[in-house]
Amino acid sequence: MEPYDVIYETYGKMNDDKSNIIVVCHALTGSHHAAGYYEGEHKGGWWDGFIGPGKAIDTDEFFVISTNVIGSCFGSTGPMSRRYPDQEPYRYKFPVVTIKDMVKAQRILFDRLGIHHVHAIVGGSMGGMQALQFAVQFPKFATKIIAMAATYATQPWAIAFNKVAQASILHDPEFKNGYYDPEDLHENGLSGMAVGRMAGHISFLSHYSMQKKFGREYKLTDGLFELFGKFQVESYLEYNGYNFTKWFDPLSYLYITKAINIYDLSRGFDSLEQALLNVQSETYLISFKEDMLFLSDEMKVIADKLAGRKTLQSDYFEVDSNYGHDAFLVELDKFDDYVKKALHE
Amino acid sequence: MEPYDVIYETYGKMNDDKSNIIVVCHALTGSHHAAGYYEGEHKGGWWDGFIGPGKAIDTDEFFVISTNVIGSCFGSTGPMSRRYPDQEPYRYKFPVVTIKDMVKAQRILFDRLGIHHVHAIVGGSMGGMQALQFAVQFPKFATKIIAMAATYATQPWAIAFNKVAQASILHDPEFKNGYYDPEDLHENGLSGMAVGRMAGHISFLSHYSMQKKFGREYKLTDGLFELFGKFQVESYLEYNGYNFTKWFDPLSYLYITKAINIYDLSRGFDSLEQALLNVQSETYLISFKEDMLFLSDEMKVIADKLAGRKTLQSDYFEVDSNYGHDAFLVELDKFDDYVKKALHE
Repeated sequence: MEPYDVIYETYGKMNDDKSNIIVVCHALTGSHHAAGYYEGEHKGGWWDGFIGPGKAIDTDEFFVISTNVIGSCFGSTGPMSRRYPDQEPYRYKFPVVTIKDMVKAQRILFDRLGIHHVHAIVGGSMGGMQALQFAVQFPKFATKIIAMAATYATQPWAIAFNKVAQASILHDPEFKNGYYDPEDLHENGLSGMAVGRMAGHISFLSHYSMQKKFGREYKLTDGLFELFGKFQVESYLEYNGYNFTKWFDPLSYLYITKAINIYDLSRGFDSLEQALLNVQSETYLISFKEDMLFLSDEMKVIADKLAGRKTLQSDYFEVDSNYGHDAFLVELDKFDDYVKKALHE
Repeated sequence: MEPYDVIYETYGKMNDDKSNIIVVCHALTGSHHAAGYYEGEHKGGWWDGFIGPGKAIDTDEFFVISTNVIGSCFGSTGPMSRRYPDQEPYRYKFPVVTIKDMVKAQRILFDRLGIHHVHAIVGGSMGGMQALQFAVQFPKFATKIIAMAATYATQPWAIAFNKVAQASILHDPEFKNGYYDPEDLHENGLSGMAVGRMAGHISFLSHYSMQKKFGREYKLTDGLFELFGKFQVESYLEYNGYNFTKWFDPLSYLYITKAINIYDLSRGFDSLEQALLNVQSETYLISFKEDMLFLSDEMKVIADKLAGRKTLQSDYFEVDSNYGHDAFLVELDKFDDYVKKALHE
């Protein structure tokens, strides 16, 4: 897969001795656009509340670099990128990528940019997996690792939610077994991916937050089967599912969910313990109590093993949140002080 | 919707004073075939471990009657039944049915059979909803109500899982907007329903049981995207999803999930308290600790309100199970003694 592109954004200013660099890693459907607003953009970067002047990752102090993972669809090489030299999209010729590959591709980019060491690597969900993989794979690269809402190896319930999405994409006739024309999809997107994404959205919330957000709110509609109305939670899933298909590529979704499913920090080692013996960075782990996708207990497994290493600085913080997995994107005020402190300790 | 059929099975022998009758109510995809084996059948009725000679619901002592709910596809009138008088399938002309309608249809059947009072009504999941609805709607009909793994009103996470299944069915081109020919589907079934059912299967288990059943077991396969193998949990979802489409009707799935979604025990009353004031039967509520679909807490809500009624005999039992929702079908040994006792108390 050469040559390949890794697209990135930066925020803040690198200082002369390159001691203020922070790498931010994105989740499944995220991108290099972690902070700030493009011209005319309404929503801003996916962690804009967290990265910026005076924010938890303070760009008055730090230089932040955020890349789009390989396999994704926002500029880095992915399955719909044109393959060298024939210029046809890779599609299934794109290799199965792992979190390790994503991290390696970033590491090579940073080398090219003259960045051989960073102050910290920070990420949540799949971004947290990358941060942890960095720590195991390139032990001297980062002074600090801050990983949140992730795991040491993806568990069956997370694989199951991804499976529903994958099956739903694969069985949509408009997916054409991967030989779709993206131009045909961009109007309404791939409905199979919309449906699959709805399942994902269940896993991003908790019982509590669904109860609070939607309850049994109901409104009348006039669709065919929905003649008698629709629950608020149904509208939410539909809106988010269909909206998603307008900006994300189905093959990228298959490849990235595959990368998440096969993620296992212990791969290539005899055990997780052995893998974690490699870690030399100070490690800060954050979990969210009601995360149903990557359970608090999973982060605790890593935390306990790291705590056993007496010469290593590590810390674990379970955020008292009942929002669910997406808390790492939503309830920033519950852990921004912790991150700020971790970055300065 | 007249005339309509309600198909039923019975086990055991009714005694002369009709004092030994137990009604058993099935869940979403269940049927009247609750116990015993048909000739050549390998699996037996869905609660065969629970109903039979010497079992929790002892057919040496009790006469058990189990019906198939209206809207379903095993013999009772449902959306693919032929409509009177034109003999065309109802399809979308089938009315939206509620749990209350299902119960009412059974009540009318029982009247026709000369059954005006029963010893107990027992059911789990949607069967538990029916048992509770019986208690509210026909307060004098049953001496005892035993409802398990159900709720007082379906909550957004359960609605969300049903939504994924409904959307997946509705968007499958082979569903033909409800105008499919069942003969065309019976070979391989509707793949949209298979995918939707996979989401359901996530909700029937718990984190713990998925971890225990599947872990990260992986086996090599040679499908297109699955070139590099498949997790055990993926095979499980595929097998169960596709197998399901061979024996269940898509329109029935839409109608019954709708009935579950709109189920609310307080409908027609000012509040749940008011609805429960109607209850005159002894009430036994069973919940399962790690049920992710109908949370233990939801059953507790009913239990607490009933416990407040001093003249009413009621009891609540939280089963110490980490299996998940399907525990009511699987971990019978954890509550069969309780049920046996409740039936005799």
